[in-house]
Amino acid sequence: MDELDLGLVQQLQHDGRKPFTEIAQELGVSEGTVRNRYTRLIEDGVIQVIGMINPHQLGIDAPALVGVSLETGDWDEAIATIAKFDEVSYLVLVSGEFDLIVEVMCQDRDHLADFLQRTLRQVPGVIRTQTFTILRTYKMALGAKPTLEKRDSKE
Amino acid sequence: MDELDLGLVQQLQHDGRKPFTEIAQELGVSEGTVRNRYTRLIEDGVIQVIGMINPHQLGIDAPALVGVSLETGDWDEAIATIAKFDEVSYLVLVSGEFDLIVEVMCQDRDHLADFLQRTLRQVPGVIRTQTFTILRTYKMALGAKPTLEKRDSKE
Amino acid sequence: MDELDLGLVQQLQHDGRKPFTEIAQELGVSEGTVRNRYTRLIEDGVIQVIGMINPHQLGIDAPALVGVSLETGDWDEAIATIAKFDEVSYLVLVSGEFDLIVEVMCQDRDHLADFLQRTLRQVPGVIRTQTFTILRTYKMALGAKPTLEKRDSKE
Amino acid sequence: MDELDLGLVQQLQHDGRKPFTEIAQELGVSEGTVRNRYTRLIEDGVIQVIGMINPHQLGIDAPALVGVSLETGDWDEAIATIAKFDEVSYLVLVSGEFDLIVEVMCQDRDHLADFLQRTLRQVPGVIRTQTFTILRTYKMALGAKPTLEKRDSKE
Amino acid sequence: MDELDLGLVQQLQHDGRKPFTEIAQELGVSEGTVRNRYTRLIEDGVIQVIGMINPHQLGIDAPALVGVSLETGDWDEAIATIAKFDEVSYLVLVSGEFDLIVEVMCQDRDHLADFLQRTLRQVPGVIRTQTFTILRTYKMALGAKPTLEKRDSKE
Amino acid sequence: MDELDLGLVQQLQHDGRKPFTEIAQELGVSEGTVRNRYTRLIEDGVIQVIGMINPHQLGIDAPALVGVSLETGDWDEAIATIAKFDEVSYLVLVSGEFDLIVEVMCQDRDHLADFLQRTLRQVPGVIRTQTFTILRTYKMALGAKPTLEKRDSKE
Amino acid sequence: MDELDLGLVQQLQHDGRKPFTEIAQELGVSEGTVRNRYTRLIEDGVIQVIGMINPHQLGIDAPALVGVSLETGDWDEAIATIAKFDEVSYLVLVSGEFDLIVEVMCQDRDHLADFLQRTLRQVPGVIRTQTFTILRTYKMALGAKPTLEKRDSKE
Amino acid sequence: MDELDLGLVQQLQHDGRKPFTEIAQELGVSEGTVRNRYTRLIEDGVIQVIGMINPHQLGIDAPALVGVSLETGDWDEAIATIAKFDEVSYLVLVSGEFDLIVEVMCQDRDHLADFLQRTLRQVPGVIRTQTFTILRTYKMALGAKPTLEKRDSKE
Repeated sequence: MDELDLGLVQQLQHDGRKPFTEIAQELGVSEGTVRNRYTRLIEDGVIQVIGMINPHQLGIDAPALVGVSLETGDWDEAIATIAKFDEVSYLVLVSGEFDLIVEVMCQDRDHLADFLQRTLRQVPGVIRTQTFTILRTYKMALGAKPTLEKRDSKE
Repeated sequence: MDELDLGLVQQLQHDGRKPFTEIAQELGVSEGTVRNRYTRLIEDGVIQVIGMINPHQLGIDAPALVGVSLETGDWDEAIATIAKFDEVSYLVLVSGEFDLIVEVMCQDRDHLADFLQRTLRQVPGVIRTQTFTILRTYKMALGAKPTLEKRDSKE
Repeated sequence: MDELDLGLVQQLQHDGRKPFTEIAQELGVSEGTVRNRYTRLIEDGVIQVIGMINPHQLGIDAPALVGVSLETGDWDEAIATIAKFDEVSYLVLVSGEFDLIVEVMCQDRDHLADFLQRTLRQVPGVIRTQTFTILRTYKMALGAKPTLEKRDSKE
Repeated sequence: MDELDLGLVQQLQHDGRKPFTEIAQELGVSEGTVRNRYTRLIEDGVIQVIGMINPHQLGIDAPALVGVSLETGDWDEAIATIAKFDEVSYLVLVSGEFDLIVEVMCQDRDHLADFLQRTLRQVPGVIRTQTFTILRTYKMALGAKPTLEKRDSKE
Repeated sequence: MDELDLGLVQQLQHDGRKPFTEIAQELGVSEGTVRNRYTRLIEDGVIQVIGMINPHQLGIDAPALVGVSLETGDWDEAIATIAKFDEVSYLVLVSGEFDLIVEVMCQDRDHLADFLQRTLRQVPGVIRTQTFTILRTYKMALGAKPTLEKRDSKE
Repeated sequence: MDELDLGLVQQLQHDGRKPFTEIAQELGVSEGTVRNRYTRLIEDGVIQVIGMINPHQLGIDAPALVGVSLETGDWDEAIATIAKFDEVSYLVLVSGEFDLIVEVMCQDRDHLADFLQRTLRQVPGVIRTQTFTILRTYKMALGAKPTLEKRDSKE
Repeated sequence: MDELDLGLVQQLQHDGRKPFTEIAQELGVSEGTVRNRYTRLIEDGVIQVIGMINPHQLGIDAPALVGVSLETGDWDEAIATIAKFDEVSYLVLVSGEFDLIVEVMCQDRDHLADFLQRTLRQVPGVIRTQTFTILRTYKMALGAKPTLEKRDSKE
Repeated sequence: MDELDLGLVQQLQHDGRKPFTEIAQELGVSEGTVRNRYTRLIEDGVIQVIGMINPHQLGIDAPALVGVSLETGDWDEAIATIAKFDEVSYLVLVSGEFDLIVEVMCQDRDHLADFLQRTLRQVPGVIRTQTFTILRTYKMALGAKPTLEKRDSKE
C-alpha cells in the first residue's frame, strides 16, 4: 500500500460512493488511475465498499456481547451453526475465560431472552453463556485504521 | 422501510458502489427512484456506504477484545480518551463483569503488550483490564440484518 | 396516567385500604371519580392492592438470593418448576454470570440447606447454584416509584 | 397466627381491598372479628396492605439487579445513600461475592447506563458493581407464603 | 450456663485434665459441685474434653482447604463418603461459590496430589474442586469462646 | 510415636479425662508408664487435652468461613488484629484466590452482618472479603488422625 | 552439595560445554576432580547439561499458558496424553482454580486456535481450558538457583 | 535450519556435553562440520547448552505459579524488580485474568508464605496475587521441539 492507495482508502472510508472523478481530483491523479487502484484493492481483498445499516434505525434496542463456552467435541459444527443466526453480527474465537465471543443484535429484552434461551443455548456443544448487555456504543470503527508506518518490534 | 428500501439496502450490502442503473433494473423501478430512496436512507441515517479495510491485509496479527473496569470518578473522560486511540476499533459500555468492552487492532504480540501496558492501563480511571486474544474471526457482519417483520413481544 | 391517577396511587402506596371517601377529600374530587379511576387502574393492570406479609413475623430467618445456572435443554420446564416452590418469592431471567436469580424465604439455616440440596439442586436442568445469604434487608419497595416525567434518552 | 388469621391474610393477598363483610362471610365469622384481627395484624406488623405498581405500565423497560462491592470505611452512609435513590426498589446486605445486591428500575438502556455511571458508581465507598440485566420476570411474590406448620430442624 | 459453668469451662479450655480438686479450689466451691457441673455439661453436650493431636508433630506438611462443587443428585451419599476419609478433618456445607468446604491433612505435596486426584475427585457427584494450600496456621481455637452476654439483634 | 503412644492418644481422643488406671488396664501396661508417656506427649507438643465447647449450645447460629484479601503493606499487623477477635475461631494463610481464610462464630445473621461490616472490613489492609455461610457442619475432627504408617512419596 | 559442587554448577549454568580443564583452573582443582564431581552430579540427578532451543528462532510466535480443568475419572491417562503433545513444553498439576497448567509453544494464532480446538479440548477428561497468551517473556531461568544456605523455617 | 542442524540439536537435547566426535560419527559428517554448525547455532542464538539444576535435589519443596495483577503506573519497574528475585525462575506478561504469571521456587511452605507476604506483595504496583501451588511436575521440556515442517495457516 502506497500513499495513493492510502488516500483512496481514506476517501472511501468517509463516503463509499464518492465518484472516482472527485477522488481523482482531490488526489491529483487521473480517474483511470483511481479506478485501477480501486479494482486492485478490491481484488486483493484490502478493502470492501459496503452499505452498513444503523442498528438503532432498525429498532435494535437490546444488543449484547455473549461469552460462549464450548464442551469437548465438534467445535466446527457449533461455530458454523452460531455464525448462521441472523441475530449474530460478530463471532470470534478467543483465548481466555470464554471460547467464543459473539455480538448479537436483538430488538428488545424479550427477543434477547428468547434468543439466549431457545436458540443459542440449544446449540449442541454450547455449555455456558455469559451475556454482557450493551448499554451504549461509543465507537464502531470500520476495520482497522490504515497507516503506512510499520512498528519496530522491541522484543 | 418498505420492500423497495429493503431491496436497495440488500444490494448495497453486497456492493456499495453498484451503479444505481443496475440496481434500478434489478428492482424494476426507475434510476431516479433508486437515487431518491438512497438519498433519503443516507439522510435519515438508516445506512452508510463505506470502505472497510481488511485488518489482515494491514498486517494486524494481534487483534483482541479487552474487558475494562473503571473506578469511581469521571467516566466520560476515560471513555473519550480510550475511544480516541487508533488501535481501538470498537468500544461499548456493558452491564456485567466489566464496565467497557473494547476491540483493539494490534500488529503483533509486542504491539499488544505495549498498548495494554503503556497506553490503556495508563488511562486515569482504568483499574483493571482482562484481555481476550482473538484467535480467529468467523463472522463480522456489517451492522444488523434488515427485515420487514416486527417481533411480537411475549412478556 | 395523569395527576389524579398519580395522587390516588400515592395514597394507596401508604395504605391500600384507605376509604375512597378520604382519598376523594384529600384529592379534591368526588368519591365516584376516585372509584372509577381505581377500577380503571386495576383493570389496566397499572396497580394491584394486596396484603403483603412481613417475612420476619413468619419466622423467616434465612432468606437468600440464589444465582442459578441452567444447562442446555428445556428451560421453560425448569423455570416453571422453580417458580412453583413455596420458598421462592422472586424469580427473574438475567443476563450475566447466572441464568436465573431467585429469592428464597427459608426459616433457618437447616431449611435453606435442605431447600438447596434436596429441592433446588434436584430440578432437572439446574447445574450450578451460588447462594448469597441475606444478612440484612435495607429496602423493599413496592414496585417502581410512580412519576409523571419522561426521561429524554441521550443516546 | 391461628387459622383465622391465616384465612384473613390469604384473602388479602388476592385482593387487598376486599370488604370485611365479604371476608367475614367466607371465613364464617362476624365482620367485627375480621376487623379486630385485621387491626391487630397491621399493628403487630405481620401484614401491610398496599398499592403496588406494575413497573411495565410505568415504562420501566430496563430493570436490573446490581451486585455492589464496598471498600473499607463507613458502610452505613453508603448504604443509606443508595437506599434513597428513586431507581432502587430493593437493597439487601449479603454474604458472598458481593456486599450488597440492589434491584434498580430504569426506563431504558440509556437510563440504566446513566444510573450506573453517574449515580451508583459515584457513591463514596462503592468500588465495584456487576449488573445483571433482568430479561424476564417470572415470579414476584409478595413477601413470604403464610403457613401454620413449623419445620423441625434436623441438625 | 451461669458463672460457675463458665469458670469450669475456662479452666478446662486450658488443661482438660486439670484435677477437679484444683478447679474447685480456684472457683471457691466443693469438688462435688465441680464434678456435678462437669457431668451435666458433658451430658448436655455443651463441652467435650478430648485429646487433640498437633498435625505438625505427625508430619502433616501439606494441609489444605478444598472448595467442592457437587452436581445434581444424591448429595447425602457424596457427603458421607467424603466425611469418612482419614485425611478429612473438617467438612461443612456452605452457601456461596462452593457447595462444601473441606479441610484435609496430607503429609506432603505428593500425598495431597494423590488425595485430590485419586480420592476426592473420584467421589461420584463431585464435579469440581478448588484447593487452597494452607501456608501457615495463625489460630485454631477450640470451638467458640464462651460468654454470658447475649447480643441484642438490631434488625 | 510407637504403638503404645498411639493407643494412649486414641483413648484420649474419645475421652480426654479417662483415668490413667483405666487406660493402663486397656493397653496392658502400668499406670506409671501411661503417666510418663502422657507427660512426654504433652511436653513434646504432640497432643493437647482440652475442653471444647459445642458452638450450637452457645447459641452460635451464624457460623461462616470468610475469604479475606489483603492489600500490599504490613500483613503481620492485619493478621494479628484479626486473630484477636473473639468471633474468629480459625485463621490460616492460604495460596489461591484469597490470602486468608477465617472461620467466624456469630450468634445470628445480625451479628455476622455487624462483624463483617463494622469489624473485619474495618481492619487496615483488608480490601475484600467473601463470606461462605456455614449451613451445616458434617465433620469437625480434632487435629489429624494418628497413624504409624509413613507414605512413600511417588514423585 | 559443597562449595566445589556449587562452583562447578555455576560454571555449567553459563556454558554447558565449557571444557573441564578450564573449569578446573578457575576452581583451583585438578581436571580429574572436576570430572568426578560432574559424573556424580549427573548420576545423582542434581544437574542435567542440555541443549535448549530458543523458541523465537524456531518461529514460535504464539506461546501460551493454559489452565486445564479435568473431570472426575482417569486423570493419569489424560495427563499422559497431554504431556506427549509436541506443542506442550511444561505441564504441572496445581492446587487452585485449575487442575493443570500447561505451557504450549505454537507458531501463530492459527496454530494455537487449532491446538486448543482440535487437540487439547478433544482429550477425554478435559472439560474446561482457559488460555493466557504470552505477550512477552521476561525471565526463563534454568531450574532453581543453587545456594549453600538453608532457610530456618519460622513456623 | 536444515537436517544436519536438526540432528545436532536433537543430540544436544539428550546430552549437552556429548563429544563432537561422537555426534559427527552418528550424523555421518566430519567433526569440523559439527563444530562449525555448533558455533553458528550458538552465535545465532538458536540454542544454548546449559547446566540445569533439578529443583528437588536442592530441597525445593514448595514450587508455585503465581498470577500477578498490576495497577496503573510504571510496569517496567515492577516487572524488573520481580524478575530479579532469586526465587523467581520464570516471568511472562500474559493476556487474560492476570497481568503476569511467575514461577517461584521456594524451599517449603514457610518460605513460600514469606516470599508472597514479605517480598512479592510488597513490590510497588503489585495489587493482587493468586498462587497455584505446584503439586507435581509432569513435563519440563527445554524450549520448543525442533522441526523442519512449516504449518500452513488456515485463516
